[in-house]
Amino acid sequence: MFRKILIANRGEIALRVARACRELGVCSAAVYSTADSRSAVVRYADEAVHIGPPPAKRSYLSVPNVIEAALKCGADAIHPGYGFLSEDADFAEICQDNGITFIGPTPTVMDRIADKALVRGLMADAGLPVLPGSDGAVGTLAEAQEIAGAIGYPLVVKAAAGGGGRGIAVVRKAGELPSIFRETRATAQALFGDPSVYLERYLPFAAHVEGQVLCDGHGTVLHLGERDCSLQRRKQKLVEETPSPRLSGEQRAQLGEYAVAAARAVGYLGAGTVEFLVDGAGRLTFMEINGRIQVEHPVTEMATGVDIVAEQIRIAAGQKLTWTQRDVAVRGVAIECRVNAEDPERGFRPTPGVLKVFRPPAGPFTRVDSGFAEGDAVVAYYDSLLAKLIVWAPTRNEAIARLTRALEEFQVDSDEVATTIPLARELIAQPAFVAGTHSTVFVDEFLAERTEPLR
Amino acid sequence: MFRKILIANRGEIALRVARACRELGVCSAAVYSTADSRSAVVRYADEAVHIGPPPAKRSYLSVPNVIEAALKCGADAIHPGYGFLSEDADFAEICQDNGITFIGPTPTVMDRIADKALVRGLMADAGLPVLPGSDGAVGTLAEAQEIAGAIGYPLVVKAAAGGGGRGIAVVRKAGELPSIFRETRATAQALFGDPSVYLERYLPFAAHVEGQVLCDGHGTVLHLGERDCSLQRRKQKLVEETPSPRLSGEQRAQLGEYAVAAARAVGYLGAGTVEFLVDGAGRLTFMEINGRIQVEHPVTEMATGVDIVAEQIRIAAGQKLTWTQRDVAVRGVAIECRVNAEDPERGFRPTPGVLKVFRPPAGPFTRVDSGFAEGDAVVAYYDSLLAKLIVWAPTRNEAIARLTRALEEFQVDSDEVATTIPLARELIAQPAFVAGTHSTVFVDEFLAERTEPLR
Repeated sequence: MFRKILIANRGEIALRVARACRELGVCSAAVYSTADSRSAVVRYADEAVHIGPPPAKRSYLSVPNVIEAALKCGADAIHPGYGFLSEDADFAEICQDNGITFIGPTPTVMDRIADKALVRGLMADAGLPVLPGSDGAVGTLAEAQEIAGAIGYPLVVKAAAGGGGRGIAVVRKAGELPSIFRETRATAQALFGDPSVYLERYLPFAAHVEGQVLCDGHGTVLHLGERDCSLQRRKQKLVEETPSPRLSGEQRAQLGEYAVAAARAVGYLGAGTVEFLVDGAGRLTFMEINGRIQVEHPVTEMATGVDIVAEQIRIAAGQKLTWTQRDVAVRGVAIECRVNAEDPERGFRPTPGVLKVFRPPAGPFTRVDSGFAEGDAVVAYYDSLLAKLIVWAPTRNEAIARLTRALEEFQVDSDEVATTIPLARELIAQPAFVAGTHSTVFVDEFLAERTEPLR
Repeated sequence: MFRKILIANRGEIALRVARACRELGVCSAAVYSTADSRSAVVRYADEAVHIGPPPAKRSYLSVPNVIEAALKCGADAIHPGYGFLSEDADFAEICQDNGITFIGPTPTVMDRIADKALVRGLMADAGLPVLPGSDGAVGTLAEAQEIAGAIGYPLVVKAAAGGGGRGIAVVRKAGELPSIFRETRATAQALFGDPSVYLERYLPFAAHVEGQVLCDGHGTVLHLGERDCSLQRRKQKLVEETPSPRLSGEQRAQLGEYAVAAARAVGYLGAGTVEFLVDGAGRLTFMEINGRIQVEHPVTEMATGVDIVAEQIRIAAGQKLTWTQRDVAVRGVAIECRVNAEDPERGFRPTPGVLKVFRPPAGPFTRVDSGFAEGDAVVAYYDSLLAKLIVWAPTRNEAIARLTRALEEFQVDSDEVATTIPLARELIAQPAFVAGTHSTVFVDEFLAERTEPLR
């Protein structure tokens, strides 16, 4: 096992990793930007290293600063969390060069899954259903127009290096293709430093369901069931749950098999996620592989009992998985609701400020992962996630009742900070969510049709 | 289902019940003494009724005041929690007379199980192993001396109306019997209003293991596994866990069967606990039946997924259990640690005062049930329970590591309030606890032998 893990992240996931370190008997070192100098993980970790000013590029995204911090404090491993450097293969390689274990897949695998166009082909070869689309990246508009003719409209133009719902644009008819193709390449270049895009048929009103896998370095690949992440606003997940309410037992088993096949096909190591689109008939289509811990991993933890972060660390330390596929059972239903410091009434504008009152709910089968405590400030530099509220119950209706109770109990008071709590309470009471038939555009439609302000 | 439940209790259990009401869609009404006017449950419940001054006899133990509160607010049921009126058959009967459902067993059953001497005989008839002892209550010293001669020494004199470890005295040799017999009768009279005592063989170095049962009004009796509550100081439980680390699979199954047989033998209704002593060889002996929700019920909830408080309410409303014995599986290991506002360095003297800082731990598989929030005051009138910290993990070693992490994370700062957290951290690190071989006198011996002050 490692002696000391540097946690190259901030907020709730940094605290989550620090807790796992503590339970595994490993020292934890937090890093922090000047804006985060008194954050929860800084207070919690065994030590903390300052890595630069607030802008992420000069601290959490600065490879030299993070590596220097790790070397300075003698860390023999780095946990990247999600976002920031977690999907940066170059960073993983530099860790390796410095004798530090990167807790995640190998740089080669990271490169492979980062190329969405390439991985699409690998998945098709591995027997996974993929949507009709281009065979890899598309270089010119003329090429795009020819392929688009074969796929048919509507279709999507996607950044090959994209992910997390960014760098995607829908093309409704042929006339829109030239401008959207150009714009998406420019966006891809700006966001990901790579203009490559590919084309794929557009599946409207689809659901988003993802399989969680765990792969050790000894040939074992496990799947831990799926998560339904269809409740999204503008392609950002708001509510996630396991099991998916829309899959039959057969479809669920199929998804598990696909997820394992996908992980094997790319030579995966650690905890990973294989994302699928699901149409109204429950048909699965491969979307992408995410090579990091997911924000929504706690729902899988609550339903299976597997501590995914601890397993990531054990796997990176070369240990064998102690779970077998037969040991893994998804019990009951777990639902996570993200609580963001945003104002849904004003286009989800982030609302930084001081949390005068911050009292998360508690009680049976209720978990809150947050990087904030009462009195802390939400700063403008980073994402707006205040807390993840996760509940479990034997049935989905009971889980919704519990989530409703816990959301009502969540006290946030601030002169500046608005939260998504009132919106979440309305959304989970909507018939489409209660029935589990909501698609990924459900929230946007709900907001567009709504005439009353949120409570 | 009920319209409104009056919660005739305070502290963490009152809040626990209020949360269950919320999730079941039932209105909750808290009661409070003047000392508790701003307590967590008062803030949380749908309404709150003042029932008198701080001394429990004039508020939480006052039958007229509680009944009046229920009638005033139109409650159709009363949840008594634990302690206070929860085992008072007269109170349950008065509820009935006023058309209010008492959430618990019937008054007849409560009377039956309150007579420890009587229930001992019923259990023997039902095939449960009981220790050699008197056949019912013992009226005179002469009678006691004759029976004691047959049982042999050491033996215990127990209050027939006792419970919760009170009204029990060990007699090591014949010469001690007269004074202890007299004193225990006086104690029984003072504590329980009934001087009846009975005799039983004393089992030294025994463990305390209890079976949880759920019985609906339609003939279904379930057992939800057992809890090992052997980590006690002066017969007050400090740490409880499920499953018991000292039972074999066979012994565990036997305990479940005994618990179900015991519940059936007394005609039980609702959630109940059948307590056993376990000797070094794992042999079980019946001790008593507790007709209330137990402080330590959350460990069973975390390991089985059953919401015991919600089931109590559903059963009292006449509903059938939705669980079958086959559905109930104890998964992994759950451990609860009670955090008391007491000073272990000064004989566990209660330490009332203001909680300047009160930040319970969080994170995966970690639950905290508490009736306090930061800034609240611990008052001297009631028990010293600050919080229950419950963790779950796939294995016992992982659960101990998680509990250790969570105890380290628990922040309490106060000028007046001391807590049992430092003691708990030491106790769960002791080899006897880690091995799961500790008896009920382990803590007292540990404290007696200790030379270093607590951290």
